[in-house]
Amino acid sequence: SKIPPGPDEMAKNHIMHYNMNLLETTVMPAFNKEQVLVLTPMSKFYPEYWDNLLALSYPRELMELGFIVPRGKAGDEVVKKLETAVKAVQRSSTESARFARVTILRQDSESVESQLEKDRHALKAQKERRSKMALARNSLLFSTLGPFTSWVLWLDADVVETPKTLIQDLATHNKAVIAANCYQRYYNEETKKNDIRPYDYNNWVESEEGLRLASTLGPDEIIVEGYAELPTFRALMAHFYDPHGDLSTEMQLDGVGGTAVLVKAEVHRDGAMFPSFPFYHLIETEGFAKMAKRLGYQVFGLPNYLVYHYNE
Amino acid sequence: SKIPPGPDEMAKNHIMHYNMNLLETTVMPAFNKEQVLVLTPMSKFYPEYWDNLLALSYPRELMELGFIVPRGKAGDEVVKKLETAVKAVQRSSTESARFARVTILRQDSESVESQLEKDRHALKAQKERRSKMALARNSLLFSTLGPFTSWVLWLDADVVETPKTLIQDLATHNKAVIAANCYQRYYNEETKKNDIRPYDYNNWVESEEGLRLASTLGPDEIIVEGYAELPTFRALMAHFYDPHGDLSTEMQLDGVGGTAVLVKAEVHRDGAMFPSFPFYHLIETEGFAKMAKRLGYQVFGLPNYLVYHYNE
Ligand SMILES: Nc1nc2c(ncn2[C@@H]2O[C@H](COP(=O)(O)OP(=O)(O)O)[C@@H](O)[C@H]2O)c(=O)[nH]1
Ligand SMILES: Nc1nc2c(ncn2[C@@H]2O[C@H](COP(=O)(O)OP(=O)(O)O)[C@@H](O)[C@H]2O)c(=O)[nH]1
Ligand SMILES: [Mn+2]
Ligand SMILES: [Mn+2]
Repeated sequence: SKIPPGPDEMAKNHIMHYNMNLLETTVMPAFNKEQVLVLTPMSKFYPEYWDNLLALSYPRELMELGFIVPRGKAGDEVVKKLETAVKAVQRSSTESARFARVTILRQDSESVESQLEKDRHALKAQKERRSKMALARNSLLFSTLGPFTSWVLWLDADVVETPKTLIQDLATHNKAVIAANCYQRYYNEETKKNDIRPYDYNNWVESEEGLRLASTLGPDEIIVEGYAELPTFRALMAHFYDPHGDLSTEMQLDGVGGTAVLVKAEVHRDGAMFPSFPFYHLIETEGFAKMAKRLGYQVFGLPNYLVYHYNE
Repeated sequence: SKIPPGPDEMAKNHIMHYNMNLLETTVMPAFNKEQVLVLTPMSKFYPEYWDNLLALSYPRELMELGFIVPRGKAGDEVVKKLETAVKAVQRSSTESARFARVTILRQDSESVESQLEKDRHALKAQKERRSKMALARNSLLFSTLGPFTSWVLWLDADVVETPKTLIQDLATHNKAVIAANCYQRYYNEETKKNDIRPYDYNNWVESEEGLRLASTLGPDEIIVEGYAELPTFRALMAHFYDPHGDLSTEMQLDGVGGTAVLVKAEVHRDGAMFPSFPFYHLIETEGFAKMAKRLGYQVFGLPNYLVYHYNE
């Protein structure tokens, strides 16, 4: 009996009428034909990311994809590879094999990534880097979110392995914002075995020390999680992974990373974006979590639900 | 030699490729075929608003319109009138007489306006009222801004008279954010003549006293301009109108109202939205101005450039 959210479009007249209160988000989004917008800022194209995306079991006719790629030569290469991959899928004669829409945006600035791995993660480089990432995420979000979208899945371009049911699994929790736990596969030289280790430290629970540290900062200073220079003693979701635990265990978070996060579109529509300026001494995805909370939403993570980051 | 911004759309494949750095905003937007998105939160439909909008000389094929209307009976009436008006225009057989697109959103909540004029403007009612307005503006903005949009014109539904060249006039100043001065026509009982008086007090320059007042507030308290209970001694653009002055006189502002403001789309894309929570003790359009400034943009007003608010 549910009316699927859809535009009462009078094509000839170019009038579209959307009823926001019909735009539900439910625990059975595919069944209820809810549109999911998958957003990926992309500075490198990994075939593994693309293959994993194609393997997702959510109906493609309900999925829109949005990418933002930096300017410059490296970005040109990314776009070429991405377009080739996209075209191969979108040219399919089977409608259900095609995504509802694919948008590729070129950033108005070059990558901030044209630095070494070490420099890139150095604390001093983080403020500028993450501030630019925030601008890229916002450009992508503001340009692609439609009156239709029920969910936004933020998925980093170097997330190369997730369960096929990623969208359904996250949506089932019916949370405003919910993050998977991002790990990395590697070869453990000590045990001589393939192993896994935590990767994304931006999913955390605020601590007394974190708040105290913030209170000592000037109005334009920020805390970015995961740096010895700024010990916050925050509880990091990365450390809560229990290999024998229930996949659906939830924990409430105060900060999130952007590797694999499902957000109800209404959270963004209410105004939640990625601050590029210090917002409660936080920026980008961590600032986004704080903003979602200021808007009255709760933020969750799934410590035992793993997705994997590329290992370069 | 300018390449008009346009999607390199491969319709069959549903791929759209947008080059953000081709998306210029210039002082000759109509000549350069720049798309303008006119956004109006609407709790009442005034034929005078609609007639004034139709009289604007900006090319309609470059204009998209977006409305958000509250739920409930009053909202249903507004939508009926609005749709009738929209259809009459969009059914025109002349393409240039039609707007590029019209989107009508229904809010997921009822109007906060179902109060008397007095109550509506009472200080205690303002926080909730303006916070809800902020959510409505954000829903409209996030749902309608496209990868294409060059400018966003925020135009209140009760702005019933503007110069026909409103968009071109504001764009000519080439500012990130620029507000017209909103006045009201009335019958002056003293002089027994038709007269004008200031209406929108939300366009202002911050004062020492405003900053001092803010510094005494708790983290969740706000200042809304225009209340005797909260004397800020801010310089109000409304009082800078000079009937003999140059129409193009600019003044830098710290707060703006939403009656008639032109915003470069990149400002919104960078993340500038309407905070529904206290942001530097400001909310809604005043908070938006502060956010634009935090993002590195400057905000201006045109004290001698008048638009007129309905007089009920
Ligand atoms: N558009 C855009 N995307 C970027 C840029 N730098 C990184 N990315 C993408 O943003 C996401 C996060 O960046 P990444 O370097 O992986 O961060 P890390 O894994 O935390 O070191 C990935 O999807 C990158 O491909 C950039 O300058 N512009
Ligand atoms: N969507 C929506 N629009 C509203 C609501 N209340 C007012 N508006 C519109 O928002 C704009 C500003 O509101 P208004 O009452 O005129 O504010 P004032 O002129 O400052 O008293 C106008 O365009 C109204 O039609 C509401 O609850 N929902
Ligand atoms: Mn990464
Ligand atoms: Mn008004």
